[in-house]
Amino acid sequence: MSSTIRVAVLGAAGRMGSTTCAAVEAAADLELVARVDVGDDVATAVRESGAQVAIDFTIPSATEANVHALLDAGVHAVVGATGWTDESKARVAEHLERVGGGLGVVIAPNFGLSAVLAMQFAAKAARYFESAEVVELHHPNKVDAPSGTARHTAAAIAAARRDAGLGPMPDATEEGWEARGADVDGVRVHAVRLRGLVAHEEVLLGNPGEQLVIRQDSFDRVSFMPGVLLAVREVVRRPGLTVGLEHLLDLA
Amino acid sequence: MSSTIRVAVLGAAGRMGSTTCAAVEAAADLELVARVDVGDDVATAVRESGAQVAIDFTIPSATEANVHALLDAGVHAVVGATGWTDESKARVAEHLERVGGGLGVVIAPNFGLSAVLAMQFAAKAARYFESAEVVELHHPNKVDAPSGTARHTAAAIAAARRDAGLGPMPDATEEGWEARGADVDGVRVHAVRLRGLVAHEEVLLGNPGEQLVIRQDSFDRVSFMPGVLLAVREVVRRPGLTVGLEHLLDLA
Amino acid sequence: MSSTIRVAVLGAAGRMGSTTCAAVEAAADLELVARVDVGDDVATAVRESGAQVAIDFTIPSATEANVHALLDAGVHAVVGATGWTDESKARVAEHLERVGGGLGVVIAPNFGLSAVLAMQFAAKAARYFESAEVVELHHPNKVDAPSGTARHTAAAIAAARRDAGLGPMPDATEEGWEARGADVDGVRVHAVRLRGLVAHEEVLLGNPGEQLVIRQDSFDRVSFMPGVLLAVREVVRRPGLTVGLEHLLDLA
Amino acid sequence: MSSTIRVAVLGAAGRMGSTTCAAVEAAADLELVARVDVGDDVATAVRESGAQVAIDFTIPSATEANVHALLDAGVHAVVGATGWTDESKARVAEHLERVGGGLGVVIAPNFGLSAVLAMQFAAKAARYFESAEVVELHHPNKVDAPSGTARHTAAAIAAARRDAGLGPMPDATEEGWEARGADVDGVRVHAVRLRGLVAHEEVLLGNPGEQLVIRQDSFDRVSFMPGVLLAVREVVRRPGLTVGLEHLLDLA
Repeated sequence: MSSTIRVAVLGAAGRMGSTTCAAVEAAADLELVARVDVGDDVATAVRESGAQVAIDFTIPSATEANVHALLDAGVHAVVGATGWTDESKARVAEHLERVGGGLGVVIAPNFGLSAVLAMQFAAKAARYFESAEVVELHHPNKVDAPSGTARHTAAAIAAARRDAGLGPMPDATEEGWEARGADVDGVRVHAVRLRGLVAHEEVLLGNPGEQLVIRQDSFDRVSFMPGVLLAVREVVRRPGLTVGLEHLLDLA
Repeated sequence: MSSTIRVAVLGAAGRMGSTTCAAVEAAADLELVARVDVGDDVATAVRESGAQVAIDFTIPSATEANVHALLDAGVHAVVGATGWTDESKARVAEHLERVGGGLGVVIAPNFGLSAVLAMQFAAKAARYFESAEVVELHHPNKVDAPSGTARHTAAAIAAARRDAGLGPMPDATEEGWEARGADVDGVRVHAVRLRGLVAHEEVLLGNPGEQLVIRQDSFDRVSFMPGVLLAVREVVRRPGLTVGLEHLLDLA
Repeated sequence: MSSTIRVAVLGAAGRMGSTTCAAVEAAADLELVARVDVGDDVATAVRESGAQVAIDFTIPSATEANVHALLDAGVHAVVGATGWTDESKARVAEHLERVGGGLGVVIAPNFGLSAVLAMQFAAKAARYFESAEVVELHHPNKVDAPSGTARHTAAAIAAARRDAGLGPMPDATEEGWEARGADVDGVRVHAVRLRGLVAHEEVLLGNPGEQLVIRQDSFDRVSFMPGVLLAVREVVRRPGLTVGLEHLLDLA
Repeated sequence: MSSTIRVAVLGAAGRMGSTTCAAVEAAADLELVARVDVGDDVATAVRESGAQVAIDFTIPSATEANVHALLDAGVHAVVGATGWTDESKARVAEHLERVGGGLGVVIAPNFGLSAVLAMQFAAKAARYFESAEVVELHHPNKVDAPSGTARHTAAAIAAARRDAGLGPMPDATEEGWEARGADVDGVRVHAVRLRGLVAHEEVLLGNPGEQLVIRQDSFDRVSFMPGVLLAVREVVRRPGLTVGLEHLLDLA
């Protein structure tokens, strides 16, 4: 007998939370059993609702405590909230080991399939190209530059090149380093800010006579929903801590 | 003791052949020992030169006989010539099995790393997206449309969708099907012909609120050389028949 | 003494209408004096509100009668509703001539600045290139293909080529004409349908060794507002009928 | 009676010069009458050949003297050599005024039609957009960054914004300014260096909900030939000094 997964959403009144509630409700194999928000007691809410999985889209100051409460309540957790450090992840991993019982937690800094795939493909391709640069493009209200996603992508490219024994990329320029962006471990990242855009990333890889471009566009937060729902379906069969949506994808 | 690989080039006077000769000569770990062309006896030429690997960039009517001659001479073969059918490949596989001794043959319809990677990434990503279409762009002297590479890419996307249980893509259009291109197993392929271009392919993958684009540009035939040299280095340690550059890449 | 322009919006409850109301309210030099919708009498509504300009985003069956009523009431009109034929435009032009008095009407099939500029630039550039093709990309719920905008762009390119005495474009392909799209006066138009996209157009122009690409993305209907507001500000000083936003732009 | 224009090429043995000789020879309405190079006397060469127009693709140290010699010989000049200052242009203008007789000189820093059109279109569009940034992409052997073309484009965008009374672009970023590129009069220019590329420029213009992208690709120096030949045909009917290919184009 196939049955649905009962899901609670934490931070349900926020923008990501309410989009997530709608996505869970629209999925035939999931059932939304609780919308939890500021003022609610997480443990009570998930217990009373009978939730099997809780999705946390709360704020940095609340998310870690939420996850520990969920684990104490025997509920799997899918975490999209930001603010996680190596230390806070280690505490969750330790808690998971202590409670055992097949309980799982998925923490993903980015639930966008296209963003995660772009980063994975860029890292896999990097060792085969002489040059690689990253251009990220965002709306002009974004405060940081380059974006965290672009920094991670560049770091992954740099690591892949190092592993393959590649040296520094060819680059004859000596001056003119005053544009928005950064050098991340030797990979140049350019940051464009343009009214009308949302969140976009382009990885350019070059060899003599050829170019490979991997581009990713996020137009709307609904784009995160396929990744969130995938994590809900996977967390119930992946005991322990999983960090990064890429581990839930079949890219072999 | 590290040593170089001794390489013969068949079809050495042709455009791909002469570019290949130059690339072999420029590689520190390879040694060009024979330039073989129309009128030369392949078996004699490779025996006298002591070649370990031969690269065949000849014509459809000659390439299969060349490979059999190479195998009889105990020489590994890397084949870029076109015109190979399933039957001709089967005959080579059978010949390899018969001679044994660790001899290998690599046949690749495309030695372009960016083209091969684009196809691989598109196939891997396809199961995660609602929509996928292919746009290929070439110089206007190209006779066939869509290109073979684009057809293969579309077929791989279609197979990946089928394996993942995805149904037909959303598409409300009912008329207006008179543009250059094709429907390959349900994946639409658009063919642009434009003076100034060489060979380019773009795979577009879409979900609600997001897009992933994998684009590949081949500007010049030197772009095939990294793939050809990779095949030379790999064929000596891969007994039997390998079809497709992708099997020589580490994409896991 | 500088003063604001008093504006009425017809079809105010519709999606374009309500977006327009918000845009008028947000503009310092405009004042929203009437929201007119189904059931309201247009003439009465604009007279009582003292509107100087009315913006019509109603439906094809209503828009022409609305414009005649506005002209009788002495109110300038900016029209974004569709369904206008050459005949209906001619009747408005005649009406304008009859009433005189500096009254103006602007009818625009597209108020998107990027779309209108892309079409203008493509038409101006076309005579200088051997090849030109159009790729339009839309969400998969769109019923028609290619889009009206793409058809207009292709027709403008074809006309520019004809005026410059250019012959047919180079194209060696003879078969493979089964993709979504059309041949518009000899200019090939490709239509991509992809979940996640909204409305996009790309014009590719090619010469030996070079390419010019003009791309336009419409992500949201707010993108039409700068064009609508420009038309409101211009219609009061442009007596008679103006068809097309391009005539309000300074592109000389 | 229609007749051909007799053309001399100065710097005929150089890369641009020899490409130009081939282009002149291939044009039905032009006749190549002299290939002039180092060691030849320009005045003698053009007089003896009966050249009506001379194309100068020599070096900075020679080009100005060449043009004065051509004017003394009564020959129109098309100049693609670099190294021209405001002062050297002023001396040519003065010389032209002195000799009169309908003699013309065209000096163009860039003969690429797609590059010149991209710059013109970007400048025309700039006043209609909130945001504008430039991305230029070149091969990694290029020493300067950003490219001169990108700097000119950005300066033209900045001037157009200033003329239209636009203020600074929206930009919330405060740190992270260490990428290859520059801020040119408030317009951000990003410089990508990638093996496999030649010379490319992309102008991105953004408004709420929309984007206009103008991209230009130069793959090969043959791309300059249509512009060079256009200048040859135009210089004979444009007395005086013309600086910039854009003045020879019909963009009204």
